[in-house]
Amino acid sequence: MQIRKWDMAQLSFEGTQAGNPFVDVTVDALARCGGRTVEVPGFYDGNGVYRVRILPDFCGRWQVTLKSNDPLLDGQTAEFDCIAAADGVHGPVQVADEYHFAYADGTPYYECGTTCYVWNHQEPALREKTLATLKDAPFNKMRMCVFPKHYRYNANEPAFFPFEGNLKDGFDFTRFNPACWAQLDRCVTQLMDLGIEADIILFHPYDRWGFAHMDRETEDLYLRYCVARLSGYRNVWWSFANEFDFMRDKNMTDWDHYGPYVQRLDPVGHLRGIHNGRIYYDHTKPWVTHCSIQSHDFLQIPVWHERYHKPICIDECCYEGNIPNTWGNITAREMVHRFWESLAYGAYCGHGETYLNDRDELWWSKGGELVGQSPERLKFFLKIFSEMPGDYVPLRPGVVRPCIGSPSRQYLYYAGPSQSVGAEFSLPEQEQYQADIIDTWEMTVTPVPGVFSGNFLVPMPQKPYLAVRLRRVEA
Amino acid sequence: MQIRKWDMAQLSFEGTQAGNPFVDVTVDALARCGGRTVEVPGFYDGNGVYRVRILPDFCGRWQVTLKSNDPLLDGQTAEFDCIAAADGVHGPVQVADEYHFAYADGTPYYECGTTCYVWNHQEPALREKTLATLKDAPFNKMRMCVFPKHYRYNANEPAFFPFEGNLKDGFDFTRFNPACWAQLDRCVTQLMDLGIEADIILFHPYDRWGFAHMDRETEDLYLRYCVARLSGYRNVWWSFANEFDFMRDKNMTDWDHYGPYVQRLDPVGHLRGIHNGRIYYDHTKPWVTHCSIQSHDFLQIPVWHERYHKPICIDECCYEGNIPNTWGNITAREMVHRFWESLAYGAYCGHGETYLNDRDELWWSKGGELVGQSPERLKFFLKIFSEMPGDYVPLRPGVVRPCIGSPSRQYLYYAGPSQSVGAEFSLPEQEQYQADIIDTWEMTVTPVPGVFSGNFLVPMPQKPYLAVRLRRVEA
Repeated sequence: MQIRKWDMAQLSFEGTQAGNPFVDVTVDALARCGGRTVEVPGFYDGNGVYRVRILPDFCGRWQVTLKSNDPLLDGQTAEFDCIAAADGVHGPVQVADEYHFAYADGTPYYECGTTCYVWNHQEPALREKTLATLKDAPFNKMRMCVFPKHYRYNANEPAFFPFEGNLKDGFDFTRFNPACWAQLDRCVTQLMDLGIEADIILFHPYDRWGFAHMDRETEDLYLRYCVARLSGYRNVWWSFANEFDFMRDKNMTDWDHYGPYVQRLDPVGHLRGIHNGRIYYDHTKPWVTHCSIQSHDFLQIPVWHERYHKPICIDECCYEGNIPNTWGNITAREMVHRFWESLAYGAYCGHGETYLNDRDELWWSKGGELVGQSPERLKFFLKIFSEMPGDYVPLRPGVVRPCIGSPSRQYLYYAGPSQSVGAEFSLPEQEQYQADIIDTWEMTVTPVPGVFSGNFLVPMPQKPYLAVRLRRVEA
Repeated sequence: MQIRKWDMAQLSFEGTQAGNPFVDVTVDALARCGGRTVEVPGFYDGNGVYRVRILPDFCGRWQVTLKSNDPLLDGQTAEFDCIAAADGVHGPVQVADEYHFAYADGTPYYECGTTCYVWNHQEPALREKTLATLKDAPFNKMRMCVFPKHYRYNANEPAFFPFEGNLKDGFDFTRFNPACWAQLDRCVTQLMDLGIEADIILFHPYDRWGFAHMDRETEDLYLRYCVARLSGYRNVWWSFANEFDFMRDKNMTDWDHYGPYVQRLDPVGHLRGIHNGRIYYDHTKPWVTHCSIQSHDFLQIPVWHERYHKPICIDECCYEGNIPNTWGNITAREMVHRFWESLAYGAYCGHGETYLNDRDELWWSKGGELVGQSPERLKFFLKIFSEMPGDYVPLRPGVVRPCIGSPSRQYLYYAGPSQSVGAEFSLPEQEQYQADIIDTWEMTVTPVPGVFSGNFLVPMPQKPYLAVRLRRVEA
């Protein structure tokens, strides 16, 4: 068997169906390649089938041996050859440094995320519509939940649940429902095929089924199942909660347990974050790879950088829309502004859309169609963003407006609500720069005639929501 | 002599002209009324004239006795009768509680300030223009400096200096220049007559004359002179610095000295604040009466309230204008937005204007004319603000948008960049409210038909920069 690097190698084995294999049978694989051994958790997928999902990160022969308390499984072996990655496949996203993400092969990852919390729990036609929308959208990260959602505009009962059972008769938390997980597999794969990272939300409080109120043992079983099923996808991130502090049954000791628990189990080391409601999580904790923040206080980004020294994803800064909920009704202009503002401070902003419609199909939760005016402009945003060298850093000269720059190469200054006659810069006399005026709303890039060096002023039209880009030119 | 309460009683005495009376002669008054004695510093005003300025706060006979090392002055007495305050005179502004200011007679003071740093140092014609502009403007506080200003757009040499001397020949820091101080007196009086508080900035770093680099002894002499001359005006506030942390010659020990020093000298107890550049002052210090803050991070207002428990004046949040300096080029729309945002968080915002013109007469520094679009809208803002009961408090229900309210009477919710179909409220079932939609830019108040109670939604047009006001009606 040949597997391309960073594609999933799924190995399947026959085992017992007796009792409750989800809890009775332990199965782990030792995967060896080039003198390195990785322990990979396996899982039961129903019908006597056990699987191990490996994300090979190294070319060569991989040899796999099972460890199990089921004699049918224990000692079973398999092998495959990992060959070069397919074109355009760069591996899982990792933290590159305190400001940046990069794919495993070093390619910079310019995050531009959106949120459709439970698109994966909707009917097939709506899921297809979501995928069609994403195909044409700028987003390369999707925040989504394992569990279904109970909330305003989310009254529909999902077709499948992660556990056996239903709302009326209750759930058996010791038996997973493979059909539901297969649907999640499919959704994660579909995102992967679109180049979109799946930020998998493991817990959330918006629940009528009891999934927000399980006990520690059940939750450990559930998390292990998540890791075993999903860590073989290169585009998975772990988001431990949406609004962790709104989950009243859980306390800090719980989160301090779940984070390191998943960290130990996950053979790939996927990104791990936790999203806040009102109270910020202590993102200095070692298990947290990056800051997942709900806030629209962008001026605090330098404070968070100073405190956490980790990349900052402002996953929720309010959504474009018109619902009464105060977190879901900013204008497209404000949404676009927040992406640029965030970038210019060296952080990543997140999109969502909450326009009312008769079908109660709001993008932020169910996916479907985007009707707002921001996505088109975020496509333009991402294009400009992706043209920044991957080593840019936030510059903090103490001025009021933010700027990022790859020193001596390229700078991006965002003027936001300013309407200045020009932007002032102070750069070395021996370096020459070409300047562009970027209209973030009109989506235009207008080169300014001439070259600039030393202390200079780039003239600007007197209107808000402009950025200035400086690119070094040869003298 | 009869003096109305909270008008200045100026008592003048003949004394020596020998030597340097500014430093050689000490003069203080003991002012007694109704069994209370207040010590009031006097000052030398040139030509052998010494003055004591008293701001009587109590009706009755005031008896004044001088203490001096000059035998001509020592033991001299004077008296006057303090009668009821003139109509519309409410006394000096004081801190009412952790959110509010009030005049001494308890009348709420709804702060709406502006900044013309050195309007008092400009030619008479320009000063007259400033006053004419203020007469028609909403502002009831003016930030202004004792010292002239050296900065971009501020190249002109003032007619007078607080000390004897000039730039070419240097200054004698032991001799004040009465002509300059008389001009300052006039300016403070003119503001008082317009109902405007004078937030007197005692030190600032923008200097070419040496006033930012005096020694401790000189500064003590200067501060005492400021207090002696100005504390008799009811509309004076002390602002210890503009951007204290940009004054490189001074350290925290200096500020820790000046604040309490003025506090001890000032018989009236005028408000005392200190304005920051990049580093926030520790406004918990007892001598600080209110927080004077430079920032546009309005989401931090609840944090500051929590930390300082003092009224918060965001005296500088960027100015409406078009200059390249990043603090001086926000749009009128943004300026107006910041006033409403600030209010809805329970703080006070400050105005300034920095539009370029051929005369280098930018309002923020020299005064003159206002050409921006925000003042008209701030007049509307102040009207709505002044209609709030004086006991409103910031409400922090954890929602994204801010709201103030006088519980069970009146609420003001500011939607800012939201474009919602409506705003949701949850109020007691037995209370009925009338709702107004306030368009902060168009300056309209549109009553919503019907009355509201319990949990309700006030329908709103889907556009940004609206506020919703709820006023209780009789059932």
